[in-house]
Amino acid sequence: MTTAKVDDEALFMAVDGGGTGCRARLETADGKVIGGGLAGPAATRFGVEASWAAISTAFSNALDEAGIGRSDAGHIHAGIGVAGLSRQGAREALEAMEHPFASAHFATDGEIACLGAHGGRDGAIVIVGTGSCGLARLSGQLIKIGGYGFPISDEGSGAYLGLRVVRAAMMAHDGRMAMTALLGEIMGRFGDDPGNAVQWMDQATATDYAAFAPIVVRHADDGDPAARRIMQDAAAAIETIGRTLFERGAERLTLIGGLASVIESWLAPDLRRRLSPQLGDSLDGAAILAGRPAIGR
Amino acid sequence: MTTAKVDDEALFMAVDGGGTGCRARLETADGKVIGGGLAGPAATRFGVEASWAAISTAFSNALDEAGIGRSDAGHIHAGIGVAGLSRQGAREALEAMEHPFASAHFATDGEIACLGAHGGRDGAIVIVGTGSCGLARLSGQLIKIGGYGFPISDEGSGAYLGLRVVRAAMMAHDGRMAMTALLGEIMGRFGDDPGNAVQWMDQATATDYAAFAPIVVRHADDGDPAARRIMQDAAAAIETIGRTLFERGAERLTLIGGLASVIESWLAPDLRRRLSPQLGDSLDGAAILAGRPAIGR
Repeated sequence: MTTAKVDDEALFMAVDGGGTGCRARLETADGKVIGGGLAGPAATRFGVEASWAAISTAFSNALDEAGIGRSDAGHIHAGIGVAGLSRQGAREALEAMEHPFASAHFATDGEIACLGAHGGRDGAIVIVGTGSCGLARLSGQLIKIGGYGFPISDEGSGAYLGLRVVRAAMMAHDGRMAMTALLGEIMGRFGDDPGNAVQWMDQATATDYAAFAPIVVRHADDGDPAARRIMQDAAAAIETIGRTLFERGAERLTLIGGLASVIESWLAPDLRRRLSPQLGDSLDGAAILAGRPAIGR
Repeated sequence: MTTAKVDDEALFMAVDGGGTGCRARLETADGKVIGGGLAGPAATRFGVEASWAAISTAFSNALDEAGIGRSDAGHIHAGIGVAGLSRQGAREALEAMEHPFASAHFATDGEIACLGAHGGRDGAIVIVGTGSCGLARLSGQLIKIGGYGFPISDEGSGAYLGLRVVRAAMMAHDGRMAMTALLGEIMGRFGDDPGNAVQWMDQATATDYAAFAPIVVRHADDGDPAARRIMQDAAAAIETIGRTLFERGAERLTLIGGLASVIESWLAPDLRRRLSPQLGDSLDGAAILAGRPAIGR
């Protein structure tokens, strides 16, 4: 990451361009928010043009809210996180787009999340949501662990929890394992008929599998033995990602994502003790990427 | 199963209508083959009309080879196994088709495999190929265990071996587990780039996953630790299906399918000792379904 030298008058445009939507936030050097904007998905898998269109809409909305015209944006430094930036040619294409800012720096969505989580310092994150992925920024180097997608990767994620519980429900249905409250509820969702599960499976995406995760979490809290085993296995997978990041040299590790807090409670105590608090979110990371000094939020 | 009373002059048309092709065999009461025929896929997922077209082609070819015209087929009893017969409405539609035989009995492909394996007696089979499935015929009752499809079921199958080894290769690639000869070979198939595995995965079917199974088997024979663990887990899954079939009352159990013999060698000794030899194949089962007396093949 290279950052422009900035003076006190500079402003910072932070953009988080994800797969479900794009957020932009205009800030002063001390982190005061003076404008915000939203737009649709900005992941490069929808095409680089669509990605840039969403990013432009989001930052234009933030400029509007701050009352700054595009022609007056020359004192603004932008930091832009984009899902799928490492896709072939995407970074080059986005860096070539015309923008009104003094500078614009691009990074992956994971990288701005990591920057934000550690206030710009070196550190590592494990993202646990529909998918799972480990990421570390160490002396300017990026290390990625896992996150190759479902079902060949993304162990410990919501989709993984969903696949595990549907598998277990099928097994319990025909007596290969004990039927529990959790597995009964899952079979109930399929009208107690594996045939319905087969039909569902034919169309099911990772997101569809992940929709079962909250049910597993709820039953695990109630002590359901099948739910507990699935949560333990998921936590073990996340632990392996975390321990690998420590082995690779990370000193700070933070879990983020929709399932982070629940998975965290299932981790081995030694690993749980080694976790660092999340200092900021992805937009904080994008602002740091833009050159805004790190601030304690 | 109800079988017509047959005399010594009767002939038996055995048909095995599977998902990749359809075979027919015309036999005498003592099992002498007097004609055979082949045709394309007969699984009902291609439509009942297409299924019946394949079945008709196969048995017509067998009649031709035996020199018997359709109008002279009135002394032939047919037994027809069809993949996907339990699909909604399929049995009724096939039973309503016009045929030249004295009688025609339909069963699923699994049921004729089970009839054949045990020479028409009660018994159970576990089919281990691209998928996996347990099936028992006990006092006229059919019991099915698993086989709900990949990835929510079919534990221990070729597709399961493939998913396990691709997952492990991704983990070894980024240091989450030890790299072994097996996992190195798998990564090599993806040009040592997880990105290629991700692209492959987006299109991969159960059959594509199962294509990795022979590599796992070969390395397991060589003592590769990752391969051994995957084979042990697959064997444990097949064991669970087998033990469940015994618990449900089966006295004979046979493993059949492309991966049966290799999985059998990994089973726990007590279960391996309880396995029964395969007495005949699916066409033998179809002939028994047609009413042909069981013969020791």
